[in-house]
Amino acid sequence: MKQLGNLIDRIVERININLRDFEFDAGPFVRKAIPLNQLVKFYASCGITPQHPVHFHFSRSNLAGSYFYGKCMVDNAILYKSDVRGDELKAQGDRFHFKGSELPLYDDEVIRIKDACLIKTLVHCYSHDPESLEEFLIQNTASMHYANIHGSPVEGCFIGPFSTVDLTTVHDSIIGAFAYVQVGELSHQNVEPGKVWIKAGDLFEFSYAFPKKVLDKYIAIGFGEKPRGIFIDFVRSRKTDFQNVFDVVNLDAPFNVPPGASLNRYAVVRGQSHISENVLVAQRAYLRNAWLGKGANAQENCYIIDSRLEGNNVTAHGGKIIHARLGENVFVGFNSFLHGTKDFPLEIGERSIVMPHTIIDLNAPLKIPEGHIAWGYIRNAKDLSRHSVSIKALSEVDGKFNLGAMKFKGSGAKFVEAFKHRIEHILEANGAFFDGRKNRGHAQKSQDISFNIVHPYRKGPKKGIYPRIDIQP
Amino acid sequence: MKQLGNLIDRIVERININLRDFEFDAGPFVRKAIPLNQLVKFYASCGITPQHPVHFHFSRSNLAGSYFYGKCMVDNAILYKSDVRGDELKAQGDRFHFKGSELPLYDDEVIRIKDACLIKTLVHCYSHDPESLEEFLIQNTASMHYANIHGSPVEGCFIGPFSTVDLTTVHDSIIGAFAYVQVGELSHQNVEPGKVWIKAGDLFEFSYAFPKKVLDKYIAIGFGEKPRGIFIDFVRSRKTDFQNVFDVVNLDAPFNVPPGASLNRYAVVRGQSHISENVLVAQRAYLRNAWLGKGANAQENCYIIDSRLEGNNVTAHGGKIIHARLGENVFVGFNSFLHGTKDFPLEIGERSIVMPHTIIDLNAPLKIPEGHIAWGYIRNAKDLSRHSVSIKALSEVDGKFNLGAMKFKGSGAKFVEAFKHRIEHILEANGAFFDGRKNRGHAQKSQDISFNIVHPYRKGPKKGIYPRIDIQP
Repeated sequence: MKQLGNLIDRIVERININLRDFEFDAGPFVRKAIPLNQLVKFYASCGITPQHPVHFHFSRSNLAGSYFYGKCMVDNAILYKSDVRGDELKAQGDRFHFKGSELPLYDDEVIRIKDACLIKTLVHCYSHDPESLEEFLIQNTASMHYANIHGSPVEGCFIGPFSTVDLTTVHDSIIGAFAYVQVGELSHQNVEPGKVWIKAGDLFEFSYAFPKKVLDKYIAIGFGEKPRGIFIDFVRSRKTDFQNVFDVVNLDAPFNVPPGASLNRYAVVRGQSHISENVLVAQRAYLRNAWLGKGANAQENCYIIDSRLEGNNVTAHGGKIIHARLGENVFVGFNSFLHGTKDFPLEIGERSIVMPHTIIDLNAPLKIPEGHIAWGYIRNAKDLSRHSVSIKALSEVDGKFNLGAMKFKGSGAKFVEAFKHRIEHILEANGAFFDGRKNRGHAQKSQDISFNIVHPYRKGPKKGIYPRIDIQP
Repeated sequence: MKQLGNLIDRIVERININLRDFEFDAGPFVRKAIPLNQLVKFYASCGITPQHPVHFHFSRSNLAGSYFYGKCMVDNAILYKSDVRGDELKAQGDRFHFKGSELPLYDDEVIRIKDACLIKTLVHCYSHDPESLEEFLIQNTASMHYANIHGSPVEGCFIGPFSTVDLTTVHDSIIGAFAYVQVGELSHQNVEPGKVWIKAGDLFEFSYAFPKKVLDKYIAIGFGEKPRGIFIDFVRSRKTDFQNVFDVVNLDAPFNVPPGASLNRYAVVRGQSHISENVLVAQRAYLRNAWLGKGANAQENCYIIDSRLEGNNVTAHGGKIIHARLGENVFVGFNSFLHGTKDFPLEIGERSIVMPHTIIDLNAPLKIPEGHIAWGYIRNAKDLSRHSVSIKALSEVDGKFNLGAMKFKGSGAKFVEAFKHRIEHILEANGAFFDGRKNRGHAQKSQDISFNIVHPYRKGPKKGIYPRIDIQP
């Protein structure tokens, strides 16, 4: 395992040099987060479809449990159970529109991961960075458990557990546990844990921070420790359900998958579950007694348990929904934790928006009315009143609007419009609007995948390192 | 599936042009032999160990069910369930000895398969051809079900079902069903079905041909038909036992594997089976109620059922042993079919040699005495008397010696010596003599394999074609 040890040293060294302003040492975190014996046991999958241009290149890396799509180059990296989705990469000749400019792509865009260590992290590729159109780069970076790197090239960063960088290019920054940033570009910042921060230039800014005491209960990471808390326990207790799914080479769907829908063979389906037309269930999604209406999607690392979603629902990466009924077009953002129980169920009316990184952990039954937007920490109706607003009311805000610990400024109308536009785009991209011929999205394009499965060396100095692999059409 | 169809056309065209002297059309055989829907369902495995230098390169090919080792390049080929073993390839700097000459290798040797279609064929790499040291070439060739290409570069050949080319470079030739040739070099020949032919220059020559009526019962292939007969039925009836083995990604051994032994995870083990130290059980070997003594080996495509092998036994590729007790150092050659039953068991005394392509299908109990050599078609003691001779007696032959349909000429001593030398080499190469430190062979080097699993496109014009893959250390 000598080479694997050297690789970890190299990655830590490079992260630390980028984060020298903060005198930050990624070493203890990275070393604690990497289960060396698991790195040897697990395998990586490369999904190949007739629809996606493919190029996989891996060298001097460990890819245990990872899942790749599209065009992905990985050198000197450890990707432990990372899902790296290159199915939205731009192609040569595409034109990227950015604030009135139109920039052509001279080559196909690729995801390039170098000198990085991503633990159970999802990398989703649609980058909004106009500065590097052909390369979506992740370099000199560590991300901890279940962080989302979503359309966000990152360089020299430490990204905490259950955090999300969303459509934000990030340089030399620390992103705290469960923080969410969607701010376009970020450089040399230390974002506090539990901060939810959305900013679009001078148009609008939304921010909320979880009280430290609350956050610590759900997710915390001490210096050089493994992350702990309710989120970690929740995921860990369902880990064995995934084992069967990964043990077999091909897996047949547990029920008839309707036209236009796709159930990834690396998803877990248990109990009385049902999916309707145009539903997308992504790899590592978890359904138990889940009913998904037409055009709903269950994205990577999401859990839908004892719940019914009426249709055109988005459950974003890492979203968790337990004992809930969601009306049509309800959106649940990244890593949100919606925890009803049999006695205290959750109901959400149609067209409502649950902001990314929201925790709804009920001690009483709760109904969120239709057309509302909710954020923060909610346990009951009283909490809800200080952590939600009707979309209509928010649209009328122009200037400052504070409620509880939430601060908003700018144009509420623009904020709502941007959000609605994005939800519409997500549904469209995932194939919710497929009519049998047109409007194909991921649900349709992700059928007929075949997988190449790659394993590391099992013994000797290369133990844990994968052979150098290049796969092209 | 357009590209797969084009590929088959291309391969057939090239075989036919090489075999134009015979006005032979490989097309109907090849098309009948290739189960298009299976080509899409199965996957290929590339075995990676710390001991073997690795380079896999595959392009424009289908590799369904194949298993690779070492350095293998495959272009424009269909390898359906072929085991391609590059674990005995020579390395740069090695010196190849040939009749007093010493030839250095300037590069690592590679197996290169081009424009070929190999159906359930084993390719074993130790080439004895001094003319092409760095490349073991298989080109413009079709081989049918369970043929063995063993240390034999072939070009422009049609190799019939259950036939073997062994340490023989073959050009533009047809090898009939169940024929065995070990003659050094062969060009523009049509070898009749069921011929067993061993020739070492002027030193010795052994030949035997199965009666057509007997052969037809065991294996026959009509023009443009699938092969049929007892051999095919035998293999087909055990096919489902292999299914489980291929369905899971990693498979734990069903019993404790003793030191120095190796049980390949793509072997089938059923019933009360036992393996001792230094035993090698290769991929696609099949054991049911099989007891294997120290240093025995069970090679690819062999079946050992309700039998006991005392130790240092070789069961060569495709050998089948049912209801038999074999003493120490008994050798069973390629594709031999030793079929005892509960009522009519077979016993073979120590140091006896069952020639490649021998059929022993009993209608009475039979004992082959120790130190004997047996060939041809044997059903009982009467048959044995006309199809065997003591090794001692054969050693004393100098000149002609005919017995039944067997014809021998030359030095019996040299023949026996060559055979014994080869058996010793096979045991050594497979690791039978490993003492815990020295004399490592395949049994020891084949531990700690990890596998990369590659799949074809499932839909579209590339359906059935594998992506272009390159794997290096």
